[in-house]
Amino acid sequence: MSQPDSKRVKTDDEAPYELIYWPGFPGRGEFIRLVFEEAGVPYSDVAQNRDQAVALVLSHISTDNNGDAHNPPPLAPPIFKHGDLIIHQTSTILLYVAPKVGLAPKEGPGVYHLNQIVLTIFDGLLIEIHDTHHPIAISLYYEDQKEESKNKSKYFIKERLPKYFGYMQRVLDAKTSGEGPWLYGDSLTYADIVLFQAVDGTKHAFPKSTEALEKSGKYDGVFKLYEAVKERPNISKYLQSDRRQAYSDGIWRHYPELEED
Amino acid sequence: MSQPDSKRVKTDDEAPYELIYWPGFPGRGEFIRLVFEEAGVPYSDVAQNRDQAVALVLSHISTDNNGDAHNPPPLAPPIFKHGDLIIHQTSTILLYVAPKVGLAPKEGPGVYHLNQIVLTIFDGLLIEIHDTHHPIAISLYYEDQKEESKNKSKYFIKERLPKYFGYMQRVLDAKTSGEGPWLYGDSLTYADIVLFQAVDGTKHAFPKSTEALEKSGKYDGVFKLYEAVKERPNISKYLQSDRRQAYSDGIWRHYPELEED
Repeated sequence: MSQPDSKRVKTDDEAPYELIYWPGFPGRGEFIRLVFEEAGVPYSDVAQNRDQAVALVLSHISTDNNGDAHNPPPLAPPIFKHGDLIIHQTSTILLYVAPKVGLAPKEGPGVYHLNQIVLTIFDGLLIEIHDTHHPIAISLYYEDQKEESKNKSKYFIKERLPKYFGYMQRVLDAKTSGEGPWLYGDSLTYADIVLFQAVDGTKHAFPKSTEALEKSGKYDGVFKLYEAVKERPNISKYLQSDRRQAYSDGIWRHYPELEED
Repeated sequence: MSQPDSKRVKTDDEAPYELIYWPGFPGRGEFIRLVFEEAGVPYSDVAQNRDQAVALVLSHISTDNNGDAHNPPPLAPPIFKHGDLIIHQTSTILLYVAPKVGLAPKEGPGVYHLNQIVLTIFDGLLIEIHDTHHPIAISLYYEDQKEESKNKSKYFIKERLPKYFGYMQRVLDAKTSGEGPWLYGDSLTYADIVLFQAVDGTKHAFPKSTEALEKSGKYDGVFKLYEAVKERPNISKYLQSDRRQAYSDGIWRHYPELEED
């Protein structure tokens, strides 16, 4: 396969890891932050500087940006820079980063199994939870699609949340989950961190429904994993720091009326 | 990293490639079929036998399936089997298959750039085009969410379709797209095949809107790529064979009322 300038792309581990994401809410950038925090690997996070972050994200996603000699343009943040390499799509970034920081195998079936678990969370649970408050159009305000949001949320709570929690529980019940509370193998991987953040966001957006899932006793493994990740020393320190941003806009929004009935 | 039984998983190229997907419509399985057809690599496709396919898919996605010694259970088809390895999620399957059949680099930046392009199509365009006919709940009939579908389609046609076509055109305009009509590098990759099928499905679901995009002259590269993939000898032969299924249920559905103003 011929690759564009592939030999010239510097991606050695000497280069800094740079996260480029919107400021003001955890969003999809949070999955990447948590992976670096757990690994104790330094990374830069422009979201810590609001004005700089907005300008940098906008310059990357501008329709005037046609990429550079090494990289096609990114569509949306999170965007990740490592040396000359620029990539986007959260699961692509994690596919790249996780093996480098010791949170995924470098080769073999685990590469694909972890990728599929994480994609099921991103491509499924995350998109659907976002669409509970934007079922008609991302360009409309929530207030202008509130009735549809209520209707969609009813089905999301009743059918989709249990489906995803049930699936994650099955992955935990599988032989491949091994010893310990982890999704895959005997030690923590980036998939566990992704599930932790997905559950945390779900707790914020749909607190009553998530509590009901917990009390049902059907998903004990999922909630046990959630606590186990939360208690990891590096993660715990991060969650208590001011680097952890409060929920606000973005994927996980708490509209109490979406949980009524 | 400890991986569950990873050393015992047989994934040598001697093992047959097995696609497990619903029968009766192209769906997400089609991306995988087209990659094998282009590569001229033999694969089995249970969808050719309707009853057998339904039974096999249902056994894999049953909530009683907790996977096996090598694999966590899959959530949904397409499911892919190679020796002892079982994976799901279309982009995960392509990440695994494409380098083996010569349609992606085995390592380096191209692995991630192709993955991100393909995910932008799957995670974005495909989910949104599906949701034009199911904006409220996947468990409801289209007829029971028709008004919301019309409303969502209006925004999809006006805002989202041009966004995705515009993005793909930018990837084609980037220096990384190299010589020829391809998205990345100088030769055809699986990303081109994915874009071909995504455009083909969009033409089926929203024929008038896709024609308007084509006539606008803003996305000539996308439509040129579409034709270039369609004319590949192996793809062309496949598209004319009875293995290529007609559009029906699934992601791409043609409801003329969704294109009316």
